[in-house]
Amino acid sequence: MDMIAGEMTKEDVTAMILLAKKRAGLSWEGIAASIGMSPVWTHSAAMGMNAMPADKAESLVAALALPQEAVAVLQESPTKVWQQTVPTDPCIYRFYEIVGVYGPTLKALIHEEFGDGIMSAIDFDMSVTRVPDPKGDRVKVEMSGKYLAYNAW
Amino acid sequence: MDMIAGEMTKEDVTAMILLAKKRAGLSWEGIAASIGMSPVWTHSAAMGMNAMPADKAESLVAALALPQEAVAVLQESPTKVWQQTVPTDPCIYRFYEIVGVYGPTLKALIHEEFGDGIMSAIDFDMSVTRVPDPKGDRVKVEMSGKYLAYNAW
Amino acid sequence: MDMIAGEMTKEDVTAMILLAKKRAGLSWEGIAASIGMSPVWTHSAAMGMNAMPADKAESLVAALALPQEAVAVLQESPTKVWQQTVPTDPCIYRFYEIVGVYGPTLKALIHEEFGDGIMSAIDFDMSVTRVPDPKGDRVKVEMSGKYLAYNAW
Amino acid sequence: MDMIAGEMTKEDVTAMILLAKKRAGLSWEGIAASIGMSPVWTHSAAMGMNAMPADKAESLVAALALPQEAVAVLQESPTKVWQQTVPTDPCIYRFYEIVGVYGPTLKALIHEEFGDGIMSAIDFDMSVTRVPDPKGDRVKVEMSGKYLAYNAW
Amino acid sequence: MDMIAGEMTKEDVTAMILLAKKRAGLSWEGIAASIGMSPVWTHSAAMGMNAMPADKAESLVAALALPQEAVAVLQESPTKVWQQTVPTDPCIYRFYEIVGVYGPTLKALIHEEFGDGIMSAIDFDMSVTRVPDPKGDRVKVEMSGKYLAYNAW
Amino acid sequence: MDMIAGEMTKEDVTAMILLAKKRAGLSWEGIAASIGMSPVWTHSAAMGMNAMPADKAESLVAALALPQEAVAVLQESPTKVWQQTVPTDPCIYRFYEIVGVYGPTLKALIHEEFGDGIMSAIDFDMSVTRVPDPKGDRVKVEMSGKYLAYNAW
Amino acid sequence: MDMIAGEMTKEDVTAMILLAKKRAGLSWEGIAASIGMSPVWTHSAAMGMNAMPADKAESLVAALALPQEAVAVLQESPTKVWQQTVPTDPCIYRFYEIVGVYGPTLKALIHEEFGDGIMSAIDFDMSVTRVPDPKGDRVKVEMSGKYLAYNAW
Amino acid sequence: MDMIAGEMTKEDVTAMILLAKKRAGLSWEGIAASIGMSPVWTHSAAMGMNAMPADKAESLVAALALPQEAVAVLQESPTKVWQQTVPTDPCIYRFYEIVGVYGPTLKALIHEEFGDGIMSAIDFDMSVTRVPDPKGDRVKVEMSGKYLAYNAW
Amino acid sequence: MDMIAGEMTKEDVTAMILLAKKRAGLSWEGIAASIGMSPVWTHSAAMGMNAMPADKAESLVAALALPQEAVAVLQESPTKVWQQTVPTDPCIYRFYEIVGVYGPTLKALIHEEFGDGIMSAIDFDMSVTRVPDPKGDRVKVEMSGKYLAYNAW
Amino acid sequence: MDMIAGEMTKEDVTAMILLAKKRAGLSWEGIAASIGMSPVWTHSAAMGMNAMPADKAESLVAALALPQEAVAVLQESPTKVWQQTVPTDPCIYRFYEIVGVYGPTLKALIHEEFGDGIMSAIDFDMSVTRVPDPKGDRVKVEMSGKYLAYNAW
Repeated sequence: MDMIAGEMTKEDVTAMILLAKKRAGLSWEGIAASIGMSPVWTHSAAMGMNAMPADKAESLVAALALPQEAVAVLQESPTKVWQQTVPTDPCIYRFYEIVGVYGPTLKALIHEEFGDGIMSAIDFDMSVTRVPDPKGDRVKVEMSGKYLAYNAW
Repeated sequence: MDMIAGEMTKEDVTAMILLAKKRAGLSWEGIAASIGMSPVWTHSAAMGMNAMPADKAESLVAALALPQEAVAVLQESPTKVWQQTVPTDPCIYRFYEIVGVYGPTLKALIHEEFGDGIMSAIDFDMSVTRVPDPKGDRVKVEMSGKYLAYNAW
Repeated sequence: MDMIAGEMTKEDVTAMILLAKKRAGLSWEGIAASIGMSPVWTHSAAMGMNAMPADKAESLVAALALPQEAVAVLQESPTKVWQQTVPTDPCIYRFYEIVGVYGPTLKALIHEEFGDGIMSAIDFDMSVTRVPDPKGDRVKVEMSGKYLAYNAW
Repeated sequence: MDMIAGEMTKEDVTAMILLAKKRAGLSWEGIAASIGMSPVWTHSAAMGMNAMPADKAESLVAALALPQEAVAVLQESPTKVWQQTVPTDPCIYRFYEIVGVYGPTLKALIHEEFGDGIMSAIDFDMSVTRVPDPKGDRVKVEMSGKYLAYNAW
Repeated sequence: MDMIAGEMTKEDVTAMILLAKKRAGLSWEGIAASIGMSPVWTHSAAMGMNAMPADKAESLVAALALPQEAVAVLQESPTKVWQQTVPTDPCIYRFYEIVGVYGPTLKALIHEEFGDGIMSAIDFDMSVTRVPDPKGDRVKVEMSGKYLAYNAW
Repeated sequence: MDMIAGEMTKEDVTAMILLAKKRAGLSWEGIAASIGMSPVWTHSAAMGMNAMPADKAESLVAALALPQEAVAVLQESPTKVWQQTVPTDPCIYRFYEIVGVYGPTLKALIHEEFGDGIMSAIDFDMSVTRVPDPKGDRVKVEMSGKYLAYNAW
Repeated sequence: MDMIAGEMTKEDVTAMILLAKKRAGLSWEGIAASIGMSPVWTHSAAMGMNAMPADKAESLVAALALPQEAVAVLQESPTKVWQQTVPTDPCIYRFYEIVGVYGPTLKALIHEEFGDGIMSAIDFDMSVTRVPDPKGDRVKVEMSGKYLAYNAW
Repeated sequence: MDMIAGEMTKEDVTAMILLAKKRAGLSWEGIAASIGMSPVWTHSAAMGMNAMPADKAESLVAALALPQEAVAVLQESPTKVWQQTVPTDPCIYRFYEIVGVYGPTLKALIHEEFGDGIMSAIDFDMSVTRVPDPKGDRVKVEMSGKYLAYNAW
Repeated sequence: MDMIAGEMTKEDVTAMILLAKKRAGLSWEGIAASIGMSPVWTHSAAMGMNAMPADKAESLVAALALPQEAVAVLQESPTKVWQQTVPTDPCIYRFYEIVGVYGPTLKALIHEEFGDGIMSAIDFDMSVTRVPDPKGDRVKVEMSGKYLAYNAW
Repeated sequence: MDMIAGEMTKEDVTAMILLAKKRAGLSWEGIAASIGMSPVWTHSAAMGMNAMPADKAESLVAALALPQEAVAVLQESPTKVWQQTVPTDPCIYRFYEIVGVYGPTLKALIHEEFGDGIMSAIDFDMSVTRVPDPKGDRVKVEMSGKYLAYNAW
């Protein structure tokens, strides 16, 4: 099916971003700053797990000198797939463990404070920062999602 | 085996706490304040997912008028078990989804900022707060865990 | 732990509702009408899969002559659990099959019409109706959920 | 096995349709209109999850200027396979969640209205539409399937 | 919750049928004949996997001298649940194996003979008979289900 | 490892059969008739799920003008593998559902009629036929397998 | 449902056999000898995984002084269920491991010696014996099953 | 990474053995005899599931005229992997079924005869032979493994 | 089945040991010392995951003043079952993670040092000790298992 | 996407290391000694399951004459993935079995000695050594991980 060879995919764009980042010695924080977005969102969109608004896609393509075709690809809605039901990488597993251990606690406190509803994972943002600590620096992860109340009809 | 009937378990203590809380019309925030701890940790320990230091166990037993035997039970190290590999409750699932979608991003940014290591889920704390927002209030979840570097030997 | 015996659970209330419904020869449609809500939501709340606002809980308890303690139980936020990852009952499986076959189609059309986002399953309502048809009557299921756009930050 | 190289598959046709759609800047709604079918069915058939009647296959091939060989391929009965028992993409997962939460409710109301039977997922149609709403537009999904009564013999 | 004790369930009725059958030395074939239905359907309904029409429920209750309350229970729509995704009992596993080995063949021949559709498992009947054979008697299983064509809309 | 390139596999032969069938406009029923076997067995062997006796392999190769090397390949004992523990294609799933719903019934009736044993899935044959019916034609599937009694030793 | 209380099940009979064996200080080899059967089959039937012929059931009931009702229960066809897809007990796991490692080898050698078919697990017997060895005694397991050839039809 | 192209793997050697066996019309029994080992072990090592001692690797390479590089590959310790937790091929499944049905029996008889321990699957050997029988020849599988007693310390 | 009520099980003995330990304020190290065995083995046997030699069972029963019937129960060979394929408790999960990350490394180094074989988990012992460290004390786990070479036959 | 061809991955470097090791006839112990690290850590980093500090990466590249580009690749943080939830290779499975059997014991003894916490798998080291024994040499595995106490906040 040669007629479709050459179509650029999100995987291709991710690979190009990683290569450009490596060759230019950039950081995610630097790339994010250059397009005026947060590092979490920028990395996620670069990995193909979020879609970019047109202006941000153009900024990123310009900043990393990617092919122009990538602008459209970065704007496509991704199909968010993860292969491992339980992640094995220790750095990711620890977050899975937190959900397992503290999931019912998060639920109880959200219900207590807000009522019967949930924290949105769509209207959502997150940051990761370093907090210096004499006993060893700490990773701080802040999540913020809109409260959504269950409908009764 | 009647000789072991009557032994109090963590499940029993959890049930007694829930009942006392309901009858007294308390909130988790209120219970936590009364023992000088955070709501997240207090709820988690009350659910039997964390062990209480002796003084906090005593405070809780006093505050809720639980039987004295509960002091020792609250101090036992729990076996942390969750039945659902993928949680079905929407309020908990959304956090699982966040780990699935943003897990690789959390990993990449931790490595960029700290080096090859992880955020501890043991030397760890978390809070849930309400952030007023004209477009709809938001749930803010803050996690903080000690950075642990991989050993090379 | 006799002190907690007698606490009414959502399972108890569900059993009492089913019994009262059977003895009085009621239908879900009738029960729903008597509390001024839809049959889908009423059944779901009666099964313990949705929480009731206080006034609806009181109406239901009155309509079915349930014990007064049930009013509070019906208002509790449920933990929504389903045991079967793939449902086996044919009537439910067909809906699972529809999600498997048409899930990518629903996704594509939502993205085309609305942009990068999802249909909420929280700010959500649904109805089931009978549509007469000379070739055999049809089941019509209508779902409506608020469109939620992904955040970029 | 060179003698079988060049045989066109449903995957090939899907790729060709996606490419033609992108290059011509078409929408699914537009493509569906051009062949006189609904967007849901058209997308599903284009993805290789439904077979096309001969006339519709010819219309689609003409509309998108696909190779003539695609006409036969579009008419083949597909083997409907989905890889994820539990879908991870949030837009699709929400529908899975609806089946989990409301499956027993759909079953109860179908039995109440029709008797012991199911809604067919074969003699079935579905639509997705946008419903304007001042509090945020809504996604409306309508499903209609023939009621099938269980046989007793 | 004593007020609901004593409600008869499908499991109770199944146990009563098995006991009555054993005490009276009946066969499934005999029970089926006494209510004018097939052995497959009769056994399945007795196991709580199919609902009985009112007249058949009354006949069965009369034939086996079950309590009158069982008449209503036998008419309830069952929730069809099986615990083992892959059955372990050899007599049942062999049928699972046949579906695994010959499933694509059944599909291909149904499509060849009927078009794009399926054999209904709802408008369905089945029989099991013994076929004498000098090399060893054979089990004959005959299934008949209505052909359902996929809809295009 | 060029020395093993060119070895023909069962997958290759299946692909060649499908291609020859398509180009010649044959049906499975026609192919089966041309080699004097049943459509079910012929399709299954063509898919590589059964081994062919030498004479039938030669007939098939002659009938479809396959390369001579295919004669030996068709006689090899296949390793019968299916990827999906629970099949997703609706046409195959319905048979899985029948095993789930009626498996215990098949077991009970086989034991009643034959004793403690099973129906063989090895010394086994099956047919699929169309049964005209004014309410819609029906698919008839007939299975016959040798009864095997459990050994006691 | 008191009318069914007291019905003896296979689980009850297994428990009675284990108790009688323990109190009388018997071995499986001894019990098997007393009823003239092999230890493997006798243990399996005692565990409820095989049905006993009437005379053997009577012998066992007499030998162990079980209640007479057990005679009928021992003759019932069991539903063979195992809970663990992969057994965890090391003594059983090793046999699972042997099937995993040597399964394709058993298959290849059976096909080479007998043709396209299998070893029956129904017309089957097995023994376990001790083989003295100066380097450490060995466990010898001998299985014998009738060869069953695949049918072609 | 062209520098590593051409490295021979166990899969390559297996393919070469199968090809040489086919072209020379050999049997596993014949190959085993030519290197002075048993058919079970020889097949298993040829499949890459066991490592060969140097002299046997050389014998096999000589007997089948394989490239000299294969001698080293045959001596490598394999990583024993099987893809299917529950094997689907009927010839292999029957052995899985035997472990499921008779696993607890094997365990009980090993404990009765030897004490608390297991049969080794490492210091282990096995054979497959044909036993003529007027009612149909039988497959005999003999396993022998060293008894290993659990340590107490 | 009252005749079997009162039979003591391993679960009963475990519960009695835990109760006696708690009431007497003992440690596992202390209990182990009192019977002259290691803490790891003693705990494991107390949990019902290992069988005790007669003299050790008697010592333990004497040391904890358990009923005499427990002596026999402690000597029974346990069926070692764990419910969670992937353990969720963080203290146990970390060991699972170590097997996942370092399993291939353990395998490679055992093969390099010993040849093609394994470390026995049966002829095995283990200890857990505290190692003081100015940067934080460390947990030291030492395992020792007999090397078992694969057999070639 | 030719612009990214040639990028070296961790898999490439692993393959180059294995090849260089084989051609030079080195052992893991020897390679580890040449870079001044332990065999366990060296093998793990070579397999791409640990990141190397810059100086060690340079030493390894020099010692094995790998391309200079490998220095950077060896320093990248790996994503630790294992495919098999339950490992099948017997040498690795035995360690999984140890975690299953002794996991609760390790947990109990760590809690007894240290309090409520875990052994870190990150600040962790391990060794494998041979212990001569007249009854058969033994594999000794020593693990050491920092004790991490649960936080209460």
